[in-house]
Amino acid sequence: MNIIEIITKKKNKEELKYEELKFVIDNYLNGNIKDYQMSSLLMAIVLNGMTEEETINLTDIMINSGDLIDLSSIDGVVVDKHSTGGVGDKTTLILAPLVASAGVRIAKMSGRGLGHTGGTIDKLESIKGFRVNLSNDEFIKQVNEVGCAVISQTQNIVPADKKLYALRDVTGTTESIPLIASSIMSKKIASGADAIVIDVKVGNGALMKDKESATSLANLMIKIGKYYNKKVVCVLTNMEEPLGHYIGNGLEVKEAMDVLNGEGPKDLKEIILTLGSIMVSLSKNISIDEAKQILIENIRTKKALNKFYEFIEAQGGDINNIDIEKNIISIKSSKDGFIKRIDTFKLGEIARKLGAGRLNKDDEILYGVGLVVNKKVGEFLFENEELLKVYGNTNNIEISEITECFEIVSDKQEKPKLIIDIIM
Amino acid sequence: MNIIEIITKKKNKEELKYEELKFVIDNYLNGNIKDYQMSSLLMAIVLNGMTEEETINLTDIMINSGDLIDLSSIDGVVVDKHSTGGVGDKTTLILAPLVASAGVRIAKMSGRGLGHTGGTIDKLESIKGFRVNLSNDEFIKQVNEVGCAVISQTQNIVPADKKLYALRDVTGTTESIPLIASSIMSKKIASGADAIVIDVKVGNGALMKDKESATSLANLMIKIGKYYNKKVVCVLTNMEEPLGHYIGNGLEVKEAMDVLNGEGPKDLKEIILTLGSIMVSLSKNISIDEAKQILIENIRTKKALNKFYEFIEAQGGDINNIDIEKNIISIKSSKDGFIKRIDTFKLGEIARKLGAGRLNKDDEILYGVGLVVNKKVGEFLFENEELLKVYGNTNNIEISEITECFEIVSDKQEKPKLIIDIIM
Repeated sequence: MNIIEIITKKKNKEELKYEELKFVIDNYLNGNIKDYQMSSLLMAIVLNGMTEEETINLTDIMINSGDLIDLSSIDGVVVDKHSTGGVGDKTTLILAPLVASAGVRIAKMSGRGLGHTGGTIDKLESIKGFRVNLSNDEFIKQVNEVGCAVISQTQNIVPADKKLYALRDVTGTTESIPLIASSIMSKKIASGADAIVIDVKVGNGALMKDKESATSLANLMIKIGKYYNKKVVCVLTNMEEPLGHYIGNGLEVKEAMDVLNGEGPKDLKEIILTLGSIMVSLSKNISIDEAKQILIENIRTKKALNKFYEFIEAQGGDINNIDIEKNIISIKSSKDGFIKRIDTFKLGEIARKLGAGRLNKDDEILYGVGLVVNKKVGEFLFENEELLKVYGNTNNIEISEITECFEIVSDKQEKPKLIIDIIM
Repeated sequence: MNIIEIITKKKNKEELKYEELKFVIDNYLNGNIKDYQMSSLLMAIVLNGMTEEETINLTDIMINSGDLIDLSSIDGVVVDKHSTGGVGDKTTLILAPLVASAGVRIAKMSGRGLGHTGGTIDKLESIKGFRVNLSNDEFIKQVNEVGCAVISQTQNIVPADKKLYALRDVTGTTESIPLIASSIMSKKIASGADAIVIDVKVGNGALMKDKESATSLANLMIKIGKYYNKKVVCVLTNMEEPLGHYIGNGLEVKEAMDVLNGEGPKDLKEIILTLGSIMVSLSKNISIDEAKQILIENIRTKKALNKFYEFIEAQGGDINNIDIEKNIISIKSSKDGFIKRIDTFKLGEIARKLGAGRLNKDDEILYGVGLVVNKKVGEFLFENEELLKVYGNTNNIEISEITECFEIVSDKQEKPKLIIDIIM
């Protein structure tokens, strides 16, 4: 067996066997297979695809490339949640305490972010004192006592994915349904939950450009889950605009608290109740509707908000001390009209330039900076009405860069449908 | 412009523009584009192809990545010859003096070999004293006075191809008609000849597996030639067995002399007269048949052989001192029968293991070692009749490895047709 033969097989659209895929991953991790050989194979996979069997085999090999997390000492059915990533996506911050308030155990390992804004861990670190590194015992104890904990991924989980993902990112080989499915599922399976709810973002700014490819990805991930006896539910959601109004680390914590307090924007509430009720339904074996009623009730009675306080306090965070920038610049609309389109990707880039995210792994995040988008697609604006607020300073951003993200027209526009499909 | 965008375009089957290809080559040579990005792009090109315009543009950019050879001070129409490579291919050694004996100027820069046997330069170095490094003035002077000279490529000709070829070799991206065409043609155009004859090998051991793909390659190279106002003729030849009987550096010089002396095997003579008469016809503007008669006559009268002596002597070689191994092992056939198939690729590998070729760039060649294959496809052998001779020692080769290269059957077999097509 050698890498050239394996590349040639995939180039000729042949199926790779388990031992061939294992040879590739083992030797890529130990350095015998070089980056330039791996990227050639990856491009052949992107263009010629992989069968379901190949994808399941690759996932299995990736899972076993590192540590497996054992959550068996946590009571009940442990549910995990994953999102394929979006601008303003603070759902984990809300779902962990909300779902825990309904008695579901959430033991979540999260990452730091590369790109527009920080990851969940960065967002939590905008709360003064919040400890993202708990020992394994502390972690399990908190989940059992509080109901949820969110920590930074310290163990060596799926190192193969880490190395492959970094390479795919710089070689134009990210867009491949089997590679995306094995990347997501290997990490979720290795992380030890019993059931997994995945928010698959669809749209121009997302990895999945249309409903069709998002559905293929969902079905493939459900099949991989089945192979490991894990229940997987995928929610396809629209990512044509930012989720909610707030973009930025501390700002998103603020908006998360708003939602848990019964306030906050409609789109964010809708996605939270959809994902959350599926998580509760999976764990408690009740209907999604029943689960939803419980969650609505827990928000109304502040049980969810109190669970959030309990969770933050348990990890040492001071909820009265969230880093939010004091310097605020108001950006006004230059004309009357309805918002037709928001360039979500560009808006994310602007947030990153403000300091909300990292371009390189070692960049420092400014937790307080960000954007608050007042109006969303379909809404009407008067000339000179405030379009958004910038938290931070705009020294290296042109104001026109920001306003150009919004296409404003005179015709009435429909609000986009947020939940596209639920696949299970 | 950035490399990820360019890879993504080719992945999506879009045509790359001249400036995009130039960006790729320039930045690959200066190290801004990494090997792992280039190999991803190469695989996308292998699988999604390139248009004729892209191929001509790539060739042009590669040509201009290094030195251009100026042969204008050589009288008459200078003809170059190229072969896509085969086991036992000593045609340059024969054609240079043969065609020069008919008054054609041959100014050839050749390479060293990587693989089965040495390149033309290595073969010539098996002649004691032969100087492969002439100054530019010496080179031009010898071509004008003797009619031919063969030197080692010292100038920085098409460095882009050198770097790309090394990468393609280790990333499973060699098999691509546009990449092969631009690789061959960039070197030929940069080398400065007025007309080029290309021997395109076809068969199991060759880069082109069938007549169809070889014809596509030929047509593409002819089109590239036309763009530069260079006449290109392609001869498609069968490479299902070694060319001639001798494989190895000194041994091939010996067989070259046999052919120039009117002896030597039929297949080798046929290919020499075909390629040689096209070369003479291109240079002298006479018919191929007329050219062939001149060459046959020059062999009969020893004019060609004497030109060989003159050429070797001009470059300092002692024709009575060719390195040929004294230790000879005779390998016998284990049964009666007709040879149905010779595994040419494996036989080449055995020659390399004997020391006739290099696996790595810095390996040392044993000039004297090699194989002499007595019988070719279609010929009959008695049990215990000699199948081939090994020159050298077989310490790290199993005799069965050698005999397994020959498939011997009881039915009569047809001799394969050597010249498949001539395309101009």
